[in-house]
Amino acid sequence: MRKFNFCAGPAALPEPVLRQAQEELLDWGGRGCSVMEVSHRSPEFTEVAETAEQDLRDLLQVPDNYKVLFLQGGATAQFSAVPWNLFGAGSQVADYIYTGQWAKKAIAEAQRYGRVNIVASSEDRNFTYAPGPDSWRQTGDAAYFHYTPNETIGGVEFDYVPEVSCPLVADMSSNILSQPVPVEKFGVIYAGAQKNIGPSGIAVVIVRDDLLDRAREDIPRSLSWNVAADAGSMDNTPATFAWYLSGLVFKWLKAQGGVGAMEALSARKSSMLYDFIDNSDFYSSPVEPGSRSRMNVPFVLADDRLDGAFLQQSEEAGLLNLKGHRSVGGMRASLYNAVPVEAVQALVDFMADFERRMG
Amino acid sequence: MRKFNFCAGPAALPEPVLRQAQEELLDWGGRGCSVMEVSHRSPEFTEVAETAEQDLRDLLQVPDNYKVLFLQGGATAQFSAVPWNLFGAGSQVADYIYTGQWAKKAIAEAQRYGRVNIVASSEDRNFTYAPGPDSWRQTGDAAYFHYTPNETIGGVEFDYVPEVSCPLVADMSSNILSQPVPVEKFGVIYAGAQKNIGPSGIAVVIVRDDLLDRAREDIPRSLSWNVAADAGSMDNTPATFAWYLSGLVFKWLKAQGGVGAMEALSARKSSMLYDFIDNSDFYSSPVEPGSRSRMNVPFVLADDRLDGAFLQQSEEAGLLNLKGHRSVGGMRASLYNAVPVEAVQALVDFMADFERRMG
Repeated sequence: MRKFNFCAGPAALPEPVLRQAQEELLDWGGRGCSVMEVSHRSPEFTEVAETAEQDLRDLLQVPDNYKVLFLQGGATAQFSAVPWNLFGAGSQVADYIYTGQWAKKAIAEAQRYGRVNIVASSEDRNFTYAPGPDSWRQTGDAAYFHYTPNETIGGVEFDYVPEVSCPLVADMSSNILSQPVPVEKFGVIYAGAQKNIGPSGIAVVIVRDDLLDRAREDIPRSLSWNVAADAGSMDNTPATFAWYLSGLVFKWLKAQGGVGAMEALSARKSSMLYDFIDNSDFYSSPVEPGSRSRMNVPFVLADDRLDGAFLQQSEEAGLLNLKGHRSVGGMRASLYNAVPVEAVQALVDFMADFERRMG
Repeated sequence: MRKFNFCAGPAALPEPVLRQAQEELLDWGGRGCSVMEVSHRSPEFTEVAETAEQDLRDLLQVPDNYKVLFLQGGATAQFSAVPWNLFGAGSQVADYIYTGQWAKKAIAEAQRYGRVNIVASSEDRNFTYAPGPDSWRQTGDAAYFHYTPNETIGGVEFDYVPEVSCPLVADMSSNILSQPVPVEKFGVIYAGAQKNIGPSGIAVVIVRDDLLDRAREDIPRSLSWNVAADAGSMDNTPATFAWYLSGLVFKWLKAQGGVGAMEALSARKSSMLYDFIDNSDFYSSPVEPGSRSRMNVPFVLADDRLDGAFLQQSEEAGLLNLKGHRSVGGMRASLYNAVPVEAVQALVDFMADFERRMG
């Protein structure tokens, strides 16, 4: 029996997607083999790949002057790819907003290949807010401006898109496809799949055409967006099963009503949980109200000696993976697209019951 | 119904492995979620990862002073990783044997970061043989010696391990786990999974400990074997489903009798096909007898105007993916571990029948 899964990633996938994958795992569309067992260059897989790309383009309304790439290595490989692809034609300084653990990793890698200007940081209040534009100190000649629209660990989300004068780069791993996005305002959007797209092992990169000729000459081939774009993301054998499964998720998203529907659903789910927490003296959210993530909801118990009991009893109640990240402790409920309203209702019900019994 | 699948890669997987993955795809071991939906750092996935590594160590008898890594990006990312990891401490020249398309790609990437000495080449006879050691011109101070034990496209395989005085590096993508290998003679063995290990999207790297401190200082984090080794291949979120499935293949291999049994099976399967071809005037093998691959058997028809009919009729007979690589034409039957003897028998029967009717 399937349980409610609040894992921060690799995260829950839509059940209908898993059911279809299961049904055709040994015999895909009557071909006598699995989708995992055909050449990535075969007509049948090419159709999978192209359909997935088109569906993603439809969902996010990606303009024609952007390439959509399906690459290996997750967002972490892109932490390297961003400076390698954008520091090769002029400026080797970049603006970064420092909002938590993921921004930190992106910054650390960029610093190895150029100069990083920290535009703003929320370290002063333990990464519990998204610093507003009035506090930013931008560089005049930045090659690009990088930010993390949603910090999975801290549970902090930007509720607006920064307005900047150089190419805007976003690690959208944990909130992509949860709302409409004005892609035309971005130079590069990248996202590891394992939160809102598909299984781990594949990453999506959406890059504006004019940024494909700015790579350092000595860029490793596997990091080059230009090489990947020229090869239709098949310069090497792609992660075919992960690509196929991502495509099924895109079809499912379309059937649900697309990213507009996901935006409404995310608002509903996260409000349910935040409202409950705010009305309680037993639970609290460490994140400032204007910056609270719709995707990842960290919360703490007034008495952390009850953490163990909370985790054990919630798991027994069929609510999986509520433990907070090891670097911050407490609890975290991740409410990605595949997590249904019923899961959040069950969580709130459990939390109320736990408070009644233990509070 | 499952058909016989001779795809060169992503290739056939063992049917019992796919059946187990299918059964537990939505509810893995009664946990109420898929193996794709749990954190890579959870105790349950850690066990999957560690068991897979130990089983691979057992199968190949990997000595304790070697790390076993499970990385993303396939062999192609390793074409970059090899020079980046080994050109940082002294010599920036490497010996490469040039035996075909895959060696060519490895060489091209290494040439971007150092000097490549072509030890020997089989280009003179269209890559139809493995050049013997008597023809080699090695460098005295090479950082490493690279070769491709099996060329998937040309169908050429080395039937011995080179004896060299510097670290031996092998792209074993297409014949790993098909025979016992003296790992202690190698510095680095790497292999994309999608032929003899698992689905595409994961690569295995087996590297001797003393080679982990030779990387260029500016190596991109995602290419560093040292970073991966320190993090247990989890510096970024690994391709968890591909890792899990690879682990199931290792268990299946052990149950079949390990790599010794695979060596016997490979000899039997490939001999059946080569003997049939050699006894025919209708079919022929372009590869010299001492260098013929047990994994990939290219063959041509005496009259290539029959190629289309051969491919159409073989597919109708339930024999999939026999078309040769686009760069060489003709046919190719890949006989990896998951391809059963019955498949080869069915292929030979079909070929005999086709010859009778069309010859």
